[in-house]
Amino acid sequence: MSNSDRRRDATRSSDLKTVAANGLLDRRMLLGRGVVLAGAISTGTVGSLTGAAAEPLTDAPWSQEPGATIGPYERPSRFEKDVVRTLNNPNGQPGAQGARTPHHLTNGAITPNGLHFVVSHGGAPDIDPDKHRLVIHGLVKRPLVFTLDALGRYPMVTRVTFLECGGNGAPLFSPQPLQANLQALHGLASCAEWTGVKLSTLLDETGIDPKAKWFIAEGADAPHLARSVPLKKALDDAMIALYQNGERLMPANGYPMRLLLPGYEGNMNIKYLRRIKLVEQPAMSFWEARTYTQILPSGKAYQFYLLQEVKSFITQPSPGVTLKEPGLYEISGIAYSGTGHISKVMVSADGGRSWGEAALQEPVLSKAFTRFRMPWRWDSGAAILQSRAWDEAGNVQPTRAQFVAQRGELKAVPPVGAVLNQHFNAVTSWAVDSAGEAKHVYA
Amino acid sequence: MSNSDRRRDATRSSDLKTVAANGLLDRRMLLGRGVVLAGAISTGTVGSLTGAAAEPLTDAPWSQEPGATIGPYERPSRFEKDVVRTLNNPNGQPGAQGARTPHHLTNGAITPNGLHFVVSHGGAPDIDPDKHRLVIHGLVKRPLVFTLDALGRYPMVTRVTFLECGGNGAPLFSPQPLQANLQALHGLASCAEWTGVKLSTLLDETGIDPKAKWFIAEGADAPHLARSVPLKKALDDAMIALYQNGERLMPANGYPMRLLLPGYEGNMNIKYLRRIKLVEQPAMSFWEARTYTQILPSGKAYQFYLLQEVKSFITQPSPGVTLKEPGLYEISGIAYSGTGHISKVMVSADGGRSWGEAALQEPVLSKAFTRFRMPWRWDSGAAILQSRAWDEAGNVQPTRAQFVAQRGELKAVPPVGAVLNQHFNAVTSWAVDSAGEAKHVYA
Repeated sequence: MSNSDRRRDATRSSDLKTVAANGLLDRRMLLGRGVVLAGAISTGTVGSLTGAAAEPLTDAPWSQEPGATIGPYERPSRFEKDVVRTLNNPNGQPGAQGARTPHHLTNGAITPNGLHFVVSHGGAPDIDPDKHRLVIHGLVKRPLVFTLDALGRYPMVTRVTFLECGGNGAPLFSPQPLQANLQALHGLASCAEWTGVKLSTLLDETGIDPKAKWFIAEGADAPHLARSVPLKKALDDAMIALYQNGERLMPANGYPMRLLLPGYEGNMNIKYLRRIKLVEQPAMSFWEARTYTQILPSGKAYQFYLLQEVKSFITQPSPGVTLKEPGLYEISGIAYSGTGHISKVMVSADGGRSWGEAALQEPVLSKAFTRFRMPWRWDSGAAILQSRAWDEAGNVQPTRAQFVAQRGELKAVPPVGAVLNQHFNAVTSWAVDSAGEAKHVYA
Repeated sequence: MSNSDRRRDATRSSDLKTVAANGLLDRRMLLGRGVVLAGAISTGTVGSLTGAAAEPLTDAPWSQEPGATIGPYERPSRFEKDVVRTLNNPNGQPGAQGARTPHHLTNGAITPNGLHFVVSHGGAPDIDPDKHRLVIHGLVKRPLVFTLDALGRYPMVTRVTFLECGGNGAPLFSPQPLQANLQALHGLASCAEWTGVKLSTLLDETGIDPKAKWFIAEGADAPHLARSVPLKKALDDAMIALYQNGERLMPANGYPMRLLLPGYEGNMNIKYLRRIKLVEQPAMSFWEARTYTQILPSGKAYQFYLLQEVKSFITQPSPGVTLKEPGLYEISGIAYSGTGHISKVMVSADGGRSWGEAALQEPVLSKAFTRFRMPWRWDSGAAILQSRAWDEAGNVQPTRAQFVAQRGELKAVPPVGAVLNQHFNAVTSWAVDSAGEAKHVYA
C-alpha cells in the first residue's frame, strides 16, 4: 500500500458510521452508492496500475487455447472439489447417514441441488418413477391412488422454503463448545425452490371424513419412515413436491416425490412419499415417539414439536474462513423461521454487548432462508461475532443462556446412536482472534 | 372409470367456470380450495380402492433393501437421464457451442445449475481462480486489479434474474414453422439466483473520469469476447457475479466471475470477466458490430439492441409432452421481460381468438422468470395454445404477424454459421391434435 493510499484510507475510515462496538458499520452503507467502502481494502487488490494506458493483463494458459467441450449436464469446476457435503457415515453403514451443506462456502439463499443436506435412515432408494404410487386413504370419502403422471396434471404451486433436520445444531447442547465449523454445527439445513401439488388439492379429490384430525405420511424406502401431521397443515401449505430448483427431486431428497411441510421439522417432510392416511389420532410412530421428541431438563418431553423456530447464524466469517488482514469485510449469514418471515436480524461483534441491525436481502420470503449482511471494519483485535433473528410473529432467537435454561444441555458429548436433544436454535458465537482465525465459542 | 364416477365428473364439469374458448378455466380455481378439479381426471389415477381398511400398497424392490450410500455431491436419478441440455456441437468443433435448457421437462422459475443454457465461442476454460484477475481501468481515477479473494470482501447482493441469448428463438424467423420442440426453439434462456458485487461498488473504489460514457467488458477465455455497455448500466444494477444458485459459477457460465447485466442480451454478460475499461465511445467490437446486431427488413440494423424484450412461452403442454386422455390439465409456462416485472399473461386455446388471464406465481421478481399457470379442460378436440405477456412498463409481447411486419423473416432456413436475426420475442403457438400431440405452428 502506498503512502497516499494510507492517507486516503485513514480519511475514509473516519467517514464510516459505526453502529455498534468493534467496528460494526451502518447497514445503509450497503444500500446505495456514494459511500466509499473499499479504500480500506486496497491491499486486498494486487496493486494499483500506473496509468490508464498501461496494459495490466497477461494471457494465462486458459486465455490461449480452446476450453473444454460443453456437455449435457454441468458440474462445478475441479477447483471447487472441496465444496461438498461432509458425511458422517461415508461408507453407508447401517444407521443414519448425514450429508451437511457447506454454508461457509456458499452464498445467497438457494442451496444448489448437489449440496442440499440429507439425513437418511436407509440410503437413497433407486425408485422407478413409473412404478411408484401414492395412496391417499383412511378417513376420506374416496380413497385414491396416484401415479406421477396423474399428479403432473394437477394445478401446481412453486415456493422457496427451507428444510432443517430437528437435530441440526445438536452439537451445541454440549456444555463445552465443540471445535467444529459451521458445516458440522448447522449444516443440516438448506433452502430450495420446490414445485408440486398442494395436498389440499388432492384432498378436494378424495374428500375428508369429518372425524379426521391427523394424517400419517409414510415413505416407500426400506425404513418406511412414518410421521403424524395435524390435518390443518394439509389444508394450509403442505405440498407433494415433484421438482427441486426446477428439476426432479434429487435421489436422496425424495425422488420422485416427497411431502413438503414448510416450516416443519425436516423428518416430517417424508421422502419417497407413498401414503397419506387420514386418522383420528396420531400414530405415535417410532420416529415421533423416540428420536425426534424434545426431552426437557425435567425428564418430560415435548411430544409433537412441529415448527423449526426462529434461528440465524453467521456464515462469513466462520471457522475455516480466515481474515487475512485488517480492513473492511462483510459479515454475512442466514436467518429463517418456521413461523413465517424474518423481520429483523441484529449482529454483534463484541459477544452481545452491543448490536447493529443487519441489511436483509430482498425478497424476504416466508419460511425461507433470508440472507443478511453487515459491513464490518476489523482492526486485528479480538472480536466475538453473533447474529440474532426476529420473525414476523415477534419470536426472537434465544441467547444460549436462555436456551439452556429452558431446554437443558447434555452432561457429556453423546455416544454415537444416543438420543440427542433436538431443535437447537440459540445464538451461535464465533470468536475471531488477532490472527483473523474464527473458532466456535460460547458467549 | 365407474358409472358413478362418470356421473360425478359430468356434474363437476358444469361447475367449472370457463373464461375463454376451447376449455380455458378461471385461474382463480388455482388460488383457493373448494373447487373440485380432479374428478375429471380420475382415470389418471390407477383406480379407486375398495375401502379405507384395504391395504393398497405392495412393497417394490426399493422398499425392501437399503438404498445407495449418500455422497458428497448429488446428481439426478438415473431415470432422469434424458433431462439434459441438447447440444448443437457436441464434439466441440471450432465455432459456437450451444447447450439448451429443457424447459418442457422442468418446472418452477429457477433453472438448476446443471441445466442452465450455454452459448460458448471457445469452450469452457479451466481457470485457476487464484490466478484470475479482474482489472478496472481506462477513464477512472485509480485503476485497480482485483483478485477473487479481494472481491469476496466487498458488500454483496443477491438477485434472481434470467439470461437469454440474443439468438434465442432464431428458428422462428423461418417463414415455415420448424418442427422442433420448445428446447430447440427457446432453450437459450434460463434463470438463476446470482450473488456478487455490484459494479457500482467497485467504481466507487476506482472513481470515474467524467468523460466516461461506456465501458468495455472483456473475457479471459481464448475468444476474449468483448462488448460495450453504457456506463449508466454500471451505475444501476450491473453485478460481478461470483455465485450461481448458491455455489460458485459453473465452468461454462463464467467461473470464477462473470458480468451480470440484468435484462440485457446474454452475450453482453461477459463470462470469465477480466477487464472493465471505461471509455468515451463504444468499441464497435466484433460481437456488437456483426453477430448480435439486429438486421431490419430495410437492410439497416439496430446497432445497440440491449434489452431482451417482454416474452413468454408455454412449457406444458408443448411438443414432446403428449396428452394421454381428455380431461383437466394445467397449462404452464414462463414469462419474462428485460424491462422489469411481468404484469399480466394471457393464454389462448383457440389460436388467439379468445383469451383468459393466467395466474402468476408469486413472488413476481423484476427481470426474472415468472411461472404462469392456467387450468384447462381438453375435450380431445383440436386446439392451438398461445401465451402473451405484458410487463410493468406496458410493453406487450407482439403477435408473430406484428413481429414479422417490423423485423422481417428469413427467406430460407439459414446455413450454419450465417448471421441470424436476433431477439425473437413474438407469441409461440402449439397446435394440439385429437391424439393429444403438440406441434409447432404459426397462428
